[in-house]
Amino acid sequence: MAKSRDEMQRDRERIQKLYFEGLEGEKVFDLWASFDPELALDLTHFVSGTMYPREKIPHTTRQLAVVAALTVMERHEELRVHIYGALNVGCTKEEIAEVIFQMFTYAGAPVVNSGLKALRDVLKDRGEQ
Amino acid sequence: MAKSRDEMQRDRERIQKLYFEGLEGEKVFDLWASFDPELALDLTHFVSGTMYPREKIPHTTRQLAVVAALTVMERHEELRVHIYGALNVGCTKEEIAEVIFQMFTYAGAPVVNSGLKALRDVLKDRGEQ
Amino acid sequence: MAKSRDEMQRDRERIQKLYFEGLEGEKVFDLWASFDPELALDLTHFVSGTMYPREKIPHTTRQLAVVAALTVMERHEELRVHIYGALNVGCTKEEIAEVIFQMFTYAGAPVVNSGLKALRDVLKDRGEQ
Amino acid sequence: MAKSRDEMQRDRERIQKLYFEGLEGEKVFDLWASFDPELALDLTHFVSGTMYPREKIPHTTRQLAVVAALTVMERHEELRVHIYGALNVGCTKEEIAEVIFQMFTYAGAPVVNSGLKALRDVLKDRGEQ
Amino acid sequence: MAKSRDEMQRDRERIQKLYFEGLEGEKVFDLWASFDPELALDLTHFVSGTMYPREKIPHTTRQLAVVAALTVMERHEELRVHIYGALNVGCTKEEIAEVIFQMFTYAGAPVVNSGLKALRDVLKDRGEQ
Amino acid sequence: MAKSRDEMQRDRERIQKLYFEGLEGEKVFDLWASFDPELALDLTHFVSGTMYPREKIPHTTRQLAVVAALTVMERHEELRVHIYGALNVGCTKEEIAEVIFQMFTYAGAPVVNSGLKALRDVLKDRGEQ
Repeated sequence: MAKSRDEMQRDRERIQKLYFEGLEGEKVFDLWASFDPELALDLTHFVSGTMYPREKIPHTTRQLAVVAALTVMERHEELRVHIYGALNVGCTKEEIAEVIFQMFTYAGAPVVNSGLKALRDVLKDRGEQ
Repeated sequence: MAKSRDEMQRDRERIQKLYFEGLEGEKVFDLWASFDPELALDLTHFVSGTMYPREKIPHTTRQLAVVAALTVMERHEELRVHIYGALNVGCTKEEIAEVIFQMFTYAGAPVVNSGLKALRDVLKDRGEQ
Repeated sequence: MAKSRDEMQRDRERIQKLYFEGLEGEKVFDLWASFDPELALDLTHFVSGTMYPREKIPHTTRQLAVVAALTVMERHEELRVHIYGALNVGCTKEEIAEVIFQMFTYAGAPVVNSGLKALRDVLKDRGEQ
Repeated sequence: MAKSRDEMQRDRERIQKLYFEGLEGEKVFDLWASFDPELALDLTHFVSGTMYPREKIPHTTRQLAVVAALTVMERHEELRVHIYGALNVGCTKEEIAEVIFQMFTYAGAPVVNSGLKALRDVLKDRGEQ
Repeated sequence: MAKSRDEMQRDRERIQKLYFEGLEGEKVFDLWASFDPELALDLTHFVSGTMYPREKIPHTTRQLAVVAALTVMERHEELRVHIYGALNVGCTKEEIAEVIFQMFTYAGAPVVNSGLKALRDVLKDRGEQ
Repeated sequence: MAKSRDEMQRDRERIQKLYFEGLEGEKVFDLWASFDPELALDLTHFVSGTMYPREKIPHTTRQLAVVAALTVMERHEELRVHIYGALNVGCTKEEIAEVIFQMFTYAGAPVVNSGLKALRDVLKDRGEQ
């Protein structure tokens, strides 16, 4: 059965803590809410309260798949956020680098280079490199 | 130390059997070779003999990351090939569907719809749906 | 205040009738539900029950903006669906063609050509050309 | 009948005033002209003297369609220019935000976030937020 | 000085003969004109009467650059048209294949595969393979 | 016959000197090697030791085709590198600008504008403008 709003809200809070605890910078929710507070709630309930908590694949696999997608689309800000999330749920930097390198075959060298720089930036911010 | 040509060739054969055994249709190598046989060998040594055999992440994770990337870029032919490969190395159809659904958040509904249709086609070809 | 599930469901039904009444072919909801019925409901509540019913802009403007976006991304199936929706909510074929032509400046001729062919196909299916 | 060069030039001047009056920063025409003055004239006659002045749809609708397209393609500089143009021809910031939010469904969250930041930047530059 | 309409028209006819003589299938001009005859003229004067006739680079180089761009963006219809044009102005099939293969490094294998298939189709249509 | 590792290495050194002599900033090889030194060697042997040295088209044509592709995909860093390479192998700034301008027809004005700015930056860095 579909989740109620209260369940979405609880799952959202649990997941955002798991993925993004310690992440600095403007929260996406705050950006959305500065234009439309109600829609911001709908969006975060959907993304963080509905999609992220699904348990069909481990969080580590989910984050690596997202890193792959964001690398090939060159969505830098979001990529940094999910590299951070991948490290938080237990992916190693070697695994993240490997997924980024693998994209060479499907999307070429320039997106690999951007992806590795994003990884390096996040590691530096976390004091892990 | 970097692999020799012979090692690339052995790894290529092992990996292509693991990923693509049973896959019908024109082989990419044959397409390449019809225009330039020597370059076809360079390319397949690089992709199947160098990138795919790396052991930093499990083959299942590698394939799911590739499915994510090919879904958001809408590379249909290649997506079908790697959904096939994902099933061959042991991913379930639920896991593959989950990765495709997850792309909604990062790349929108149209690519999810194309991705699910590719998955359905491959499952039908394999007699698994 | 955020909508309840029942409100989402009612709005979804109202909007889908407004936009897509008469549209033939597989429903996107059915594609989603064939892989995951519960997630299909979450997705349709979000898209058709939350985003589409918003009243900040007229339905005609919303559809034309969507036609613009789908044209430049070359999402053919979805583009046909929303050209159909644009005609249903009262856009004329001249207005839809104009938005597609305008994309030349931002995304080049090839996507204009694909977009116009999609428009022609939909008009033919509706017996309006 | 197709416009003469003189008509293109007059329409170009009228439209650029309507859309971009007050816009600071390097003019695109000047960028083009620094490499090829004659081609710069051809291009601006085509874009600003031929495409923009067409009257098949209101300027507000044209700008919102362009905002949609530039959001999903992540063309930041051009997006800022056309958010500026949208405000100049009378679109409200709520309408522009709505078109950007709507792109979530078709192109995912990252482009929405970039689009909203572009809107925020333009509003700040104009002293409207 | 910028060209007059008559000069654009003459150059358009000369260039279209040079590039596309013998090409079968719907003409892009006819597609445009079926929606808006006057704009169709503006567009073709701009593309075929203004951009293509420029003499800063040889027609062979221009066509190969266009083949590169259309390959990485996966614009299939237009790619076939310009592979045809490249052969008409004197590029060899080996040169066209080389440009497509080179895109592996910048955009990955899937677009190379689509590009080579387009080349093969055009060669077959011309009876050259 | 396919090249040995030693031949790849020699060709890599020769080509990188030809294309990138004098280029400042972080070398892509060093970025790759900071994450995986062995893979960095595989990648550079493939790109600079295998693809770039091929002699099917002149280096000037190869670089102009790459400039076209990187312009339409908006890969800024890589575009600057290959504009630099194009100038090094003997392309003029007029030829490079022409290829970038030509992309208007296939990918729209925003990528032309970004491309011209990249060209201007490289020329300024080289003291050629």
